[in-house]
Amino acid sequence: MLRCPVCGREYRDMKRMRCGCGEPLEFKLFKGEPYIGKNVWERFWDFWPIEPDLDLSLGEGDTPLIKSRKLGRELGLELYFKNETANPTWSFKDRGTFLGITAALKFGYKAVGTVSTGNMAASVAAYASRAGLKAKILVSESASDEKLKAVSVYGASVVRVKGDYGRLYFESLRLGERLGIYFINSDNPFRIEGYKGIAFEIAEELTPDCILIPTSSGGLFRGIAKGFIELKESGLIDELPMLVAVQAEGCSPICRAFKEGKEKIERFENPKTVAKAIANPYPPSGNALLKLLREFGWKCVAVSDGEILEAQRELSEEGLFVQPASAAGIAALKRLELPEGSKVVSILTGSGLKTLSHAETGKTAECPLESLEKCLGG
Amino acid sequence: MLRCPVCGREYRDMKRMRCGCGEPLEFKLFKGEPYIGKNVWERFWDFWPIEPDLDLSLGEGDTPLIKSRKLGRELGLELYFKNETANPTWSFKDRGTFLGITAALKFGYKAVGTVSTGNMAASVAAYASRAGLKAKILVSESASDEKLKAVSVYGASVVRVKGDYGRLYFESLRLGERLGIYFINSDNPFRIEGYKGIAFEIAEELTPDCILIPTSSGGLFRGIAKGFIELKESGLIDELPMLVAVQAEGCSPICRAFKEGKEKIERFENPKTVAKAIANPYPPSGNALLKLLREFGWKCVAVSDGEILEAQRELSEEGLFVQPASAAGIAALKRLELPEGSKVVSILTGSGLKTLSHAETGKTAECPLESLEKCLGG
Repeated sequence: MLRCPVCGREYRDMKRMRCGCGEPLEFKLFKGEPYIGKNVWERFWDFWPIEPDLDLSLGEGDTPLIKSRKLGRELGLELYFKNETANPTWSFKDRGTFLGITAALKFGYKAVGTVSTGNMAASVAAYASRAGLKAKILVSESASDEKLKAVSVYGASVVRVKGDYGRLYFESLRLGERLGIYFINSDNPFRIEGYKGIAFEIAEELTPDCILIPTSSGGLFRGIAKGFIELKESGLIDELPMLVAVQAEGCSPICRAFKEGKEKIERFENPKTVAKAIANPYPPSGNALLKLLREFGWKCVAVSDGEILEAQRELSEEGLFVQPASAAGIAALKRLELPEGSKVVSILTGSGLKTLSHAETGKTAECPLESLEKCLGG
Repeated sequence: MLRCPVCGREYRDMKRMRCGCGEPLEFKLFKGEPYIGKNVWERFWDFWPIEPDLDLSLGEGDTPLIKSRKLGRELGLELYFKNETANPTWSFKDRGTFLGITAALKFGYKAVGTVSTGNMAASVAAYASRAGLKAKILVSESASDEKLKAVSVYGASVVRVKGDYGRLYFESLRLGERLGIYFINSDNPFRIEGYKGIAFEIAEELTPDCILIPTSSGGLFRGIAKGFIELKESGLIDELPMLVAVQAEGCSPICRAFKEGKEKIERFENPKTVAKAIANPYPPSGNALLKLLREFGWKCVAVSDGEILEAQRELSEEGLFVQPASAAGIAALKRLELPEGSKVVSILTGSGLKTLSHAETGKTAECPLESLEKCLGG
C-alpha cells in the first residue's frame, strides 16, 4: 500500500509514484526482525516492499563504515564515514536502483528510464543492462560528454532533452505511464526503500547520535529516515538519531524554505555550486522532507563551496576520495556544535573518480633516474 | 620467515623483499582455520603474516562475487565475477596495500613509496595518508596528468622519473632501504599476502574449477595461488582450482617464456596494448610465476586487444564497467575450451572509471521537451 507522506491519501496501485496532490508516494512502514544473512537484503528481509531478486543484484549495499582517524579527534567527536562509493557503480544510487529494477521486472515492463546526468543515470543503465531491460536515460542539454561516457558504456539509450529540466521530471512520469517505460527517478517509492539499508547497516554497528546526509532531491534523506523509523517502530533501536540534511549554499531550496518557516519549497533560481550532484533547484521530495524535518526536530544546513572543497581535502587525508557533493556532510559538521563525544556518521554518496576532470592536477616533481636518491631524500 | 620461491633460500629479516638470487621473497605457508567475523581479515586471522591493524583499514576486501546472467549461459559455464572494483580506491591493490602499510608502521617507517602509474599509486597514496605516513609515488615520464590526479588528491608526493622504468623498480628498493622509505611495490611480500583474501572469499562461497587472473607483475596471481594452496594445506578445500594467468598479446612476457619452455622471462620489447594496467614488459614476479604454472600444471593465455575490448563490452551487459585490463580474463575464457558446466571465476581488477578518458563517447539523441513522447517512443 502506497501513502502520501504529505496529505495522507492512500493508493493500491504499486506502480503509481505521485499523489494527486503532487507529492511523492511512499510505502507504509514495515516492521520486522533481523536475520542472519550474507547481505543487507537477506538480513532485513521483512522490511522490503518487494521480494529482492538477488539474481539481479550486483552486490550493492553492505558498504564499509570507516572510523575517522584524524578529523573526529580534532573535533572531539566519534566520527564515522559510510562509504557508499564502494557500490557497484560507485554511488549509493545502486541500492535504490536494485529494488526499482526488481519492481519493473515484476510489473512486466520491458523498458525503464531515469532523469539524471550523473550517478543515477549510470546506476539505472547498469542494472537495466543486467536485467535485460531497455534503458532510456534523459539528460539535460548541458550534460557533459564525459559524464555520459560512464552511462552509455552500459548500452543505455541517452537522450539530451532541450527545455526546462524541472518539467522534464514530471513529463517523464506522465509519458512513461503512457509508453510503458518505468521511470526510476530520484524519489521513486522503490528507490527510497532501497536506501533504508544504509540505516539498517549503521544500526548493526553502532548507535549514532547524528547522521549527515548530502541532500538534493531529498530521496536519500527520506530513505534513511524511513529506515531508522522502521527500526524504532520494530523495537530494534530505542531512539532515532538526529538527521541533518546538508545542501550547498548555492542551491539550497530545502534549507531556505525550512529556515523561512514555509510549508512548500520554491524553485532556487540560478543554482551555482561545485557540488553538482546535489544541485537540484526544485527537489521533487522537497515538501515531504520539510515535513519530516519539522516532525522530528531535525536540521537543514547549507554550506559554502569553499567549505565543501576543504572537507573534500580533509576526507582525502582519511584515505577517502569523494565527489564534492559527498563532502558536504563533513563541511556541515563544523557548523553544528555537537556535544563532545557525539557519535556521528557522514554519508559519502559517490566516488571522486566521477568528477575527476574537475579535480586539480597536483604538483609533480621531475627527476632523472640517476638523481633519484637526491630527489627522494628531499 | 621469508623464503625465495625460486631458489629456496630463507631470510629472517621481514623487511627484506628480494632474494640474493634476484627473485621476490615470500612468506612461508600459513595454516589455520576460519572464524566468524565481519571481514576477511578477522575470518582468516590465522593466515596473515602480521596482525592486521583494523584501525588503518578502509574496508578493503569482502567484495561481491556476482553470477553471470548472460555470458555464462552462452558459454555453457557457471561463470562468476569477483568484483574488485568495489574496493576503497576501486582496485584489488587495496588488499595488499593495507597489509603493507600495517607492516611499514610496525617496522617504524615514517615514509612509504611505490613505483606505479595507476591503481597501485592511488592505493598506496590513500592508505599512507590515512596512516599519517609520507608517500613517495614514482611514475614514468610518460604518465598522463589525468592518471596522476587520482593519486595527488591524497596528498602524496609524485615524482616523474626520467629513465628506464624497469630499472626504476630495483633502484627504488635499493634507495628505499638506504633512505628509510618502505617501498610497497607490486610484489612486496606483505602485498602478496593481502591478495590471498580473494582466494579465501571465493572458497567461502563456492568450489571453483578455474580462476582467470589478469597478470602483469605476477603479484596478484602469486597471492591468489598462495591463498588456495594454504586452504588446501589446512584441509579446508580438497583440490586446487586451475589458475589461468591472462596477459595481453602486446605485452605477454610470461606467456611467451612459458610457451617456449624457458626458465626465465625476457624483457618484452615495444609493449603495446589497450590494457595498460597489465603492460609490465619485465614483470618482477615473472620467474616465480613460471615456476608456479609448471609445478601445478596451470595455464598462461595471451589475448588480443580486440578480444579485450569485446570482453569489456560483454561485462558492461552484465552491469559491470571495468578497465580494459580487467576484461582480459573474460577474453581468455573463449580460448580455454573448459568442460561444460565448469565453475569459473574471473577477477575484475579495477574500475572502468579509472580509464574513462579512453572510453568511447556513446551515441546520444537530441530531443526538444515538446517532442519527448516521439523521442521516447522510437
